[in-house]
Amino acid sequence: MDYRVKDLSLASQGAAKISWAEQNMPVLMLLRRKYSEAKPFKGVRVGAVLHVTKETAVLMKAFIDAGAEVALAGSNPLSTQDDVAAALVEYGVHVYAWRGQSGEEYYWCLEKIVEWRPQIVLDDGADLHALIHEKHVQLASSIVGGTEETTTGVIRLRALEREGLLKYPVIAVNNAYTKHMFDNRYGTGQSTFDGILRATNMLIAGKVVVVAGYGWVGKGIAARARGLGARRVIVVEVNPIRALEAVYDGFEVMPMSEAAEVGDIFITATGNKAVVRREHFEKMKNGAVLANAGHFNVEVWIPDLEALSRSKRQILPYVTEYELSDGRRIYLLAEGRLVNLVAAEGHPSEVMDMSFANQFLASLYMLENKGSLPLKVMNPPVELDEMVARLKLESMGIRIDSMTREQEEYVKSWRHGT
Amino acid sequence: MDYRVKDLSLASQGAAKISWAEQNMPVLMLLRRKYSEAKPFKGVRVGAVLHVTKETAVLMKAFIDAGAEVALAGSNPLSTQDDVAAALVEYGVHVYAWRGQSGEEYYWCLEKIVEWRPQIVLDDGADLHALIHEKHVQLASSIVGGTEETTTGVIRLRALEREGLLKYPVIAVNNAYTKHMFDNRYGTGQSTFDGILRATNMLIAGKVVVVAGYGWVGKGIAARARGLGARRVIVVEVNPIRALEAVYDGFEVMPMSEAAEVGDIFITATGNKAVVRREHFEKMKNGAVLANAGHFNVEVWIPDLEALSRSKRQILPYVTEYELSDGRRIYLLAEGRLVNLVAAEGHPSEVMDMSFANQFLASLYMLENKGSLPLKVMNPPVELDEMVARLKLESMGIRIDSMTREQEEYVKSWRHGT
Amino acid sequence: MDYRVKDLSLASQGAAKISWAEQNMPVLMLLRRKYSEAKPFKGVRVGAVLHVTKETAVLMKAFIDAGAEVALAGSNPLSTQDDVAAALVEYGVHVYAWRGQSGEEYYWCLEKIVEWRPQIVLDDGADLHALIHEKHVQLASSIVGGTEETTTGVIRLRALEREGLLKYPVIAVNNAYTKHMFDNRYGTGQSTFDGILRATNMLIAGKVVVVAGYGWVGKGIAARARGLGARRVIVVEVNPIRALEAVYDGFEVMPMSEAAEVGDIFITATGNKAVVRREHFEKMKNGAVLANAGHFNVEVWIPDLEALSRSKRQILPYVTEYELSDGRRIYLLAEGRLVNLVAAEGHPSEVMDMSFANQFLASLYMLENKGSLPLKVMNPPVELDEMVARLKLESMGIRIDSMTREQEEYVKSWRHGT
Amino acid sequence: MDYRVKDLSLASQGAAKISWAEQNMPVLMLLRRKYSEAKPFKGVRVGAVLHVTKETAVLMKAFIDAGAEVALAGSNPLSTQDDVAAALVEYGVHVYAWRGQSGEEYYWCLEKIVEWRPQIVLDDGADLHALIHEKHVQLASSIVGGTEETTTGVIRLRALEREGLLKYPVIAVNNAYTKHMFDNRYGTGQSTFDGILRATNMLIAGKVVVVAGYGWVGKGIAARARGLGARRVIVVEVNPIRALEAVYDGFEVMPMSEAAEVGDIFITATGNKAVVRREHFEKMKNGAVLANAGHFNVEVWIPDLEALSRSKRQILPYVTEYELSDGRRIYLLAEGRLVNLVAAEGHPSEVMDMSFANQFLASLYMLENKGSLPLKVMNPPVELDEMVARLKLESMGIRIDSMTREQEEYVKSWRHGT
Repeated sequence: MDYRVKDLSLASQGAAKISWAEQNMPVLMLLRRKYSEAKPFKGVRVGAVLHVTKETAVLMKAFIDAGAEVALAGSNPLSTQDDVAAALVEYGVHVYAWRGQSGEEYYWCLEKIVEWRPQIVLDDGADLHALIHEKHVQLASSIVGGTEETTTGVIRLRALEREGLLKYPVIAVNNAYTKHMFDNRYGTGQSTFDGILRATNMLIAGKVVVVAGYGWVGKGIAARARGLGARRVIVVEVNPIRALEAVYDGFEVMPMSEAAEVGDIFITATGNKAVVRREHFEKMKNGAVLANAGHFNVEVWIPDLEALSRSKRQILPYVTEYELSDGRRIYLLAEGRLVNLVAAEGHPSEVMDMSFANQFLASLYMLENKGSLPLKVMNPPVELDEMVARLKLESMGIRIDSMTREQEEYVKSWRHGT
Repeated sequence: MDYRVKDLSLASQGAAKISWAEQNMPVLMLLRRKYSEAKPFKGVRVGAVLHVTKETAVLMKAFIDAGAEVALAGSNPLSTQDDVAAALVEYGVHVYAWRGQSGEEYYWCLEKIVEWRPQIVLDDGADLHALIHEKHVQLASSIVGGTEETTTGVIRLRALEREGLLKYPVIAVNNAYTKHMFDNRYGTGQSTFDGILRATNMLIAGKVVVVAGYGWVGKGIAARARGLGARRVIVVEVNPIRALEAVYDGFEVMPMSEAAEVGDIFITATGNKAVVRREHFEKMKNGAVLANAGHFNVEVWIPDLEALSRSKRQILPYVTEYELSDGRRIYLLAEGRLVNLVAAEGHPSEVMDMSFANQFLASLYMLENKGSLPLKVMNPPVELDEMVARLKLESMGIRIDSMTREQEEYVKSWRHGT
Repeated sequence: MDYRVKDLSLASQGAAKISWAEQNMPVLMLLRRKYSEAKPFKGVRVGAVLHVTKETAVLMKAFIDAGAEVALAGSNPLSTQDDVAAALVEYGVHVYAWRGQSGEEYYWCLEKIVEWRPQIVLDDGADLHALIHEKHVQLASSIVGGTEETTTGVIRLRALEREGLLKYPVIAVNNAYTKHMFDNRYGTGQSTFDGILRATNMLIAGKVVVVAGYGWVGKGIAARARGLGARRVIVVEVNPIRALEAVYDGFEVMPMSEAAEVGDIFITATGNKAVVRREHFEKMKNGAVLANAGHFNVEVWIPDLEALSRSKRQILPYVTEYELSDGRRIYLLAEGRLVNLVAAEGHPSEVMDMSFANQFLASLYMLENKGSLPLKVMNPPVELDEMVARLKLESMGIRIDSMTREQEEYVKSWRHGT
Repeated sequence: MDYRVKDLSLASQGAAKISWAEQNMPVLMLLRRKYSEAKPFKGVRVGAVLHVTKETAVLMKAFIDAGAEVALAGSNPLSTQDDVAAALVEYGVHVYAWRGQSGEEYYWCLEKIVEWRPQIVLDDGADLHALIHEKHVQLASSIVGGTEETTTGVIRLRALEREGLLKYPVIAVNNAYTKHMFDNRYGTGQSTFDGILRATNMLIAGKVVVVAGYGWVGKGIAARARGLGARRVIVVEVNPIRALEAVYDGFEVMPMSEAAEVGDIFITATGNKAVVRREHFEKMKNGAVLANAGHFNVEVWIPDLEALSRSKRQILPYVTEYELSDGRRIYLLAEGRLVNLVAAEGHPSEVMDMSFANQFLASLYMLENKGSLPLKVMNPPVELDEMVARLKLESMGIRIDSMTREQEEYVKSWRHGT
């Protein structure tokens, strides 16, 4: 069996980690048990580019148990958990991933997935989809369909679709309510601070926290900044409706050029580039800390930071100190990459449970509807979404109401007045 | 000039109230000043069924100043502010509204609006639209278009549209982001508790608050319950995704049958009927308080409460005490009608500013596009929505960022990887 | 029977209000029932200067039922509820109170209480204690003891004590944990905003709220400002430790001179004078709203505001609009008096339940220890305090743990290590 | 120079960590610079038993720079950061500490401090004070004074004092407002969850969190549980006043026997033993997680847990899985020791800045008042406390108001009325 990981002897440690994830992923475990008999993926090659974490491992094992052959590469050069990678190899997954890859190595791994000719393609950020469409478009005809995990990836795929270049159907798992409303908001909200605390052990109480972007991720980060006691939570936005929502949610809003002067901690979550750049670094206080929660490491514009600095050093494992020419020191966390994945462990299992239950169900849906789906970026069917939510509530011991027959009629009707 | 209000001598008191609203409605005031010269509504008859409050008055004055003739009826028998009604008559509006109408009187007022043959129809709950479609469908041909302010009304109108019965285009002002995300959530969230406090002067801290429905309104109410110190905030939902969102937002979720046993205060915001009914009253604690924040007074099912009670009395202006056969006492606020409108003053001016700026702009849009709009329930154009948000931010002295040229290109492109 | 109230015919309306308070004051009701048989106050004259509200009425009725004769004056010229005053006359209390007194009338009422030669003296703000010590010191020898409800009053009495002038023992009911930690924080915190909303119907979400003073009252107000969605909550303090606590509680801190420029709503809760004064009015934004939550109407320094204004008018019942010479408009609520008492109904019954249970028990304690208490301002005995807390928890259906025997020993011992 | 640490080659890594702490401890750094010239501790032996962290290192360096000789042992067998210990040796501190000591080794280190005959004794938990008083009381005469960092330690020392056994003056640094109100509440509040997240990577949103104890530590933990989105935060207390405060702060209160059935995560912060014990383990849900934030590892009663279990295994570095005889699994974090110190890095530098500024100033105060202090457990002088607060605010760029002369007079006076 072909694979490439850091150290296979880490497998048992990885297996223990995965067992903890299994405890906290009740929905996916239920699906795994359910489909391990019928094995609907029997003989199907599933190729995935996902962060190689213990939660991804539970998804990979679910595919294996459901009959699939599976190959996996990491979706970020710094995010792979090497012990988990090793454990997955032992479980039979073709893993091409290790922590601390070069850009070249990263793409080498992606090419391994492509070479293997996957029939279902799972992606996180659309690098694999892009690679196939750009360099291996001949492979597309044998692909049943793909999924995409992130907002950023969906934007890229929709651009492909608009240009008429999309070659296989894609389900935007990111757009499942039970994915983006929970994963992006609660998962990233918590884990971003988890990453910041592991990297710095700073006290958030009393700090001025600047959050760039008030999408789902930014909303989650702002809420947790408030919940951890920040004395000011400042939101930076370009969209007036989101900006206004931030204001009414109890946050300050201002341009980055103003926020730069007062912030203690800056967290980017926009999906855009150069959100914090030269003109902002120039105004920052000595001791300012920069972290990124967006998919790519372009939000804090490092070339500008380098250009302004006379020296830099690694002061703690995930803290780089830049000493600027004027003597101020600015601290960049995790080299501007996803702080929650690099300095902490990414999303908690509990949210990945739903994201990956959606991944699994979306893959199954594409397989069952093979050949009949349009060449589009589709949202997941709402029934799957609601099923995931129901299973999650049940796993928490929570019951909800259902409408009475009279109520169902009432909401359908329009002929009743004051 | 034809009108019917309680007492014209209240006009000066009403005018003072309206001037306070004008201070707090900067967006609408800006539009009013802007269009008072060109008078684009010159000669157009605008018929409105809206809660007759000081904020509605600012909208009515904006139409008048923009050249319209205006007739106004109240959209709820208990929500009219009589002094404001009087002041509007003095400003030249045909007002048919007074506080404490019978059902018959309520519809008499609506008929007066219809008789007057309005060309643009503004509604809040769709009673006027329903009346026209049911009894005066011949009038529809002279109607340029309509707007609808509430979620409930939009549901009713969409039902009409589905059945192919809709006779003029309607803009669902409710669906403007700057309306429903703000008005329903922040406006009703605060004013519901304002109503409860004015009615009861209860301490919210330490209480168990049950919120039925976790739509925008329910979200706002739950957030404020938490913000006022409730020791438990319990959400009741029928939709599993919303239920799960409530859980992850930090609230308890359970069926009403369980919540009924522990709640101190029950607030309904579902848009459905009989959400609190016999089986729930039977389990409630002595002293339970019931309030409704939904459009119609059907959410707390009063017939069941009456049937279970051996006596009732009005203990405070907006508090009815029901003494049940077993001796327990249950307190119903505002007769089960919208507690924020009946016991308090409805939405604060600041949110109505945006809702009514949307009403005004939507009316203008329909006028400008007369004859070319489809017979549908449409969402407001996003440009209008963003314009309202921008004006609001400006009025608060808040500046936001705009994307650099490079950023604009970046978000459009898809060919960039890790 | 001697008394002076506005209108005796309001008695039945007052009685209904009082019955609602009785529902929400379970601790005091329990004490009232308990002592209505033994009548420990039989023949004792209890003279009280308290805000004449429905909650005070429940305390007065408890004294009456326990055998006392009772005389009552209001502790603020604007805070009396006339219907409650009337109902209390019917219950046998000598009431001297009506809403809207002149300063002269206010002191006339206090003199009526003094003339009546009370043996136990209940006060709220220490005006009665001051009056006795300044003008009627000969009366002191017949006074068993006094109580004081407020922080401000306790400060005044301690000054008297320090100067060796205190003539009878006083229990600082304010210092009971079950009073000041709850009444000042949760009671005033909520009711201050209740008053502001009733006066203005403003939206708190999105506003910049400035709170002067971070004592118990200020803490409560700041927490509720946050809970209602203010986008900035700014605390102004003179004490560095409290200022730092505010920062770490997640609030901004700055001097009033800076806060004046950015605040939308200013709320004073310092117990000091001229906290908002000329130099601050000069910097405020057009539309700024001023409210006071401190005992005396000296915190917003009205003479300065008058001096800066070219006109003023009453725009709503509790809103005075000052038009400054430069055209800006500043809005003063409730004439700078306690906004929660003037524009709303003061503390909710639930907190007064504990304050007044302490008043009742402190009075009983002084009576039982007549002659043996020192001429000091004493804190209430901790057993009474804990008894009130226990009864309150029970009334809410809440059980708590008690230590096991082993745990009790453990916390007493010191000979156990790591 | 005598010392015993794990590995001296870790020193440079430790030094980098310490430089990060120095960045975040502006108050202590200011004092360090201030006293490095006069060297008031010249020739004085300072013996300390404190958690050996980067923040403690900054304190030790301040003593060294101020002229002292310093010996340091760890105050917990599991809390030492070995790299910091190494760096301190290089700075000239006699360090006796390494991570993962046996009980015997722990006391061996304490004996080394005693042997060294310290003149000023700094302690955290009073193990050193106890050791001196129990076994080396002859040493006491040469001790100028001691300090104590924790609530638990102060309780033990007060017991000694009550029994008349205290042999040197002790300043309860814990009782400085700038220590206990910040360190215990904000520091432990955050770092407890930091420890839990590092150990488990669980999602707090949606969880039922049970907090035992509502002192400063418990308050901080409960606030952060809420801030991280827990759907129920349940407080367990034995003191009725604290219990009631928890209720009014918006938390549920119930006995542990009830909480045991519904909790997902249990956190103890009582200072008492066996707060979670057999009767509670028996009721817990499968998957329950237990963490302790109190000083000693007695709050979760491990002997009971062991007795109920058929097996246990280390599933993650700080997670022990107990499999109970009935098949349920319960997860104990950090072996029941302080989760914030064992699984995370203890208090953030920002709070230790104040605690240790107090430690330093208290030591200096005892030195300056050598021989004139009573044999008591004293609170720190308020001037020192306020000085620390002022320096902290300044370091954050925050200015506060000071009273005007008129205001100072006003608050002193009592002769002003309504």
